[in-house]
Amino acid sequence: MSELQETILNFGRRARTAARALARSSSEQRNLGVLAMADAIQAAEKEILSANALDVSAGREKGLSAAMLDRLSLTAARVAAMAQGVRDVAALPDPVGEVIRRWTRPNGLEITKIRVPIGVVGIIYESRPNVTSDAAVLCLKTGNATILRGGSESIHSNVAIANALSKGLAAAGLPAEAIQLVPVTDREAVSLLCAMDKYLDVIVPRGGKGLIETVVSLARMPVIKHYDGICILYVAAAADLGMAREIVINAKCQRPGVCNAVETVLVQRDVLEEFMRSTGVALFEKGVELRCDAESYAVASHLAPVAGRAVLAEAKDFDTEFLDLVLALRVVGGLEEALEHIEAHGSRHSDGIITSDEAEAEQFLQEVDSATVYWNASTRFTDGGEFGFGAEIGISTDKLHARGPMALEELTTYKYQLRGTGQTRI
Amino acid sequence: MSELQETILNFGRRARTAARALARSSSEQRNLGVLAMADAIQAAEKEILSANALDVSAGREKGLSAAMLDRLSLTAARVAAMAQGVRDVAALPDPVGEVIRRWTRPNGLEITKIRVPIGVVGIIYESRPNVTSDAAVLCLKTGNATILRGGSESIHSNVAIANALSKGLAAAGLPAEAIQLVPVTDREAVSLLCAMDKYLDVIVPRGGKGLIETVVSLARMPVIKHYDGICILYVAAAADLGMAREIVINAKCQRPGVCNAVETVLVQRDVLEEFMRSTGVALFEKGVELRCDAESYAVASHLAPVAGRAVLAEAKDFDTEFLDLVLALRVVGGLEEALEHIEAHGSRHSDGIITSDEAEAEQFLQEVDSATVYWNASTRFTDGGEFGFGAEIGISTDKLHARGPMALEELTTYKYQLRGTGQTRI
Repeated sequence: MSELQETILNFGRRARTAARALARSSSEQRNLGVLAMADAIQAAEKEILSANALDVSAGREKGLSAAMLDRLSLTAARVAAMAQGVRDVAALPDPVGEVIRRWTRPNGLEITKIRVPIGVVGIIYESRPNVTSDAAVLCLKTGNATILRGGSESIHSNVAIANALSKGLAAAGLPAEAIQLVPVTDREAVSLLCAMDKYLDVIVPRGGKGLIETVVSLARMPVIKHYDGICILYVAAAADLGMAREIVINAKCQRPGVCNAVETVLVQRDVLEEFMRSTGVALFEKGVELRCDAESYAVASHLAPVAGRAVLAEAKDFDTEFLDLVLALRVVGGLEEALEHIEAHGSRHSDGIITSDEAEAEQFLQEVDSATVYWNASTRFTDGGEFGFGAEIGISTDKLHARGPMALEELTTYKYQLRGTGQTRI
Repeated sequence: MSELQETILNFGRRARTAARALARSSSEQRNLGVLAMADAIQAAEKEILSANALDVSAGREKGLSAAMLDRLSLTAARVAAMAQGVRDVAALPDPVGEVIRRWTRPNGLEITKIRVPIGVVGIIYESRPNVTSDAAVLCLKTGNATILRGGSESIHSNVAIANALSKGLAAAGLPAEAIQLVPVTDREAVSLLCAMDKYLDVIVPRGGKGLIETVVSLARMPVIKHYDGICILYVAAAADLGMAREIVINAKCQRPGVCNAVETVLVQRDVLEEFMRSTGVALFEKGVELRCDAESYAVASHLAPVAGRAVLAEAKDFDTEFLDLVLALRVVGGLEEALEHIEAHGSRHSDGIITSDEAEAEQFLQEVDSATVYWNASTRFTDGGEFGFGAEIGISTDKLHARGPMALEELTTYKYQLRGTGQTRI
């Protein structure tokens, strides 16, 4: 066994031991732990900022873009916001211990399906350093131990934040090793974590498609994936076109760089001209580039925008997550064609219909096989906060265990407790 | 692309199309489909029996054991039982469409978390031919399309049964391709299925550890695993020893070859002698071989059994699923030591405590991290039928999505439907 292998296995062993201790903790203890973690982050402001300065200067040398450097950089205000983000989690309701169902069998056996922590959660990420505290605190709140493995570009910041979190845990009488950061940014560490199904109950990769696919191909345990959102809105013949304009503008322009922004709009043929005069023009005014199929291009190209522009779409535009002020536009004959397009080109993330026809809307809501399906609302609501969950680990594009906004409840599982009086099977 | 690759991809494409059609079907239609499938199996009795005769004679030539040949063999009575098993599923409650939760956000958006089919379920098995109909009908009932890939030893029977099921579906106006059997018993077919995450939403391997591990290492989609049950019972100092005897005998002897049979008993030191005089003797009478740690061996070796026997355990005996009239026995000082043993040696399947001390029992029920935890009952109740679920796909040893008995509900997932009146995100 290599030294690295032994090191990673020890992370697993310690996490499993910590998870057992957490299984004995009360909700109150864990909430005190959360508050102590927030205090510890605040107290470690100096250490965190100097560690972060190392990452930022390394990033500058590596030639990271200004946007990436901004995402990486911490300030006193950002550390305070991080601590507050942790503190807020203490106030959320704790799903652990909830009785999901309880029933008694004819032989008198009482069966309780009860919500319990998952155990040990692995988070492999390459994003901003605050993922370290965000993810770890949600896991701790729900009684899970966490093994974090962040990217090399924020390694110093991550280590400083994780150290603060562990100190907070210890101060609250909880096992410091309930939160561990793997300080090895080597790719091999990811392989070793993915093989450790004895100690890791689930892995959540947070980052680009390449990272997720690597984890999926290596992992022996369940992986909760957060893939692209190619979100689609269908504007039906019976749509209120004023409402359509507001929804499409919001779904495309309010924050184009996120997974729940709309990427394709399908317009029913009969309302194409009016839709373009209203929504099309409004999109141009917002600087949006429309990638149109031939039919919509014939209309769009006559609109003479002051900003934005219309171009003919290529086939791949309907399979692209633009994450930008770019929108694919296609004309369809009706609901059937829209459903087929969504089935063939969507990513099962968030898709919606805009219509005043309730029967049509209900058919859409039933048949579209996506995590979140909308009738007359912006796709931008696919979000733990907007759902009222108070926090989120991310938006799962998986179908099993966690689908759509993944929050505290999705960090738990269940077990069955059977209470008997000597029952034996006949 | 190889010809086999193209063939397997076509299975996937057809299954996805069938799943879309099933998403439009009503519960009533699917139940009529289930009844038509039962009729079709009965009507195809001759074809199924002649196909089965080919498998049995091939098995005989290959030198399969008498027990294996018996598992493989179908008779008119077994075909009738198979048809009845299918028919029974029609009467079970359908979980699809259940509103899990519904709430309204302050902005008026109504969010409904609703139970839906998973989509396309892959079943890879090497067991008896009736898995073909059992698994397929539970999937169909819950609106899922299935791709089945059985083992080579029952290939002719499987094809005949699957053909009958498809005929039944078509007769009921449902897509015949909602149930497809891959007639390729080549190992490569398994690899190709495991890579097809675009069309298969989940894979359930049914069979030996080797098969499950192959699927786990290849699959790009979630796998629901049914691994070993190393089930453990702890007889505490406060146990009613008469009850302990009944429970241990039942859990070990009623059907030793199944995953929920007990494999290790831990006995608290103070009650060892009395336990051995009562339960130990009863186990010997049933012909059980006890593999004892040194301390229990000192007592057991003086019991002079008429049947069964006591031997000194090797270390591996405490990590073995015997599936036979063999039981590992170990003395512990108390609850803590029992919990540590279960954590280190159990398989998180079904573990129990026998005690009259409620506080001790509740601690056990809370801390043991197994799918099913028992207080004063036999571990043999871990079973979909015994839980009142009416049917089961198997006993999942996974923690996510399906844990413990996996039945109709575990063949579904959920999605969120959001009904709005033009809401946009601020």
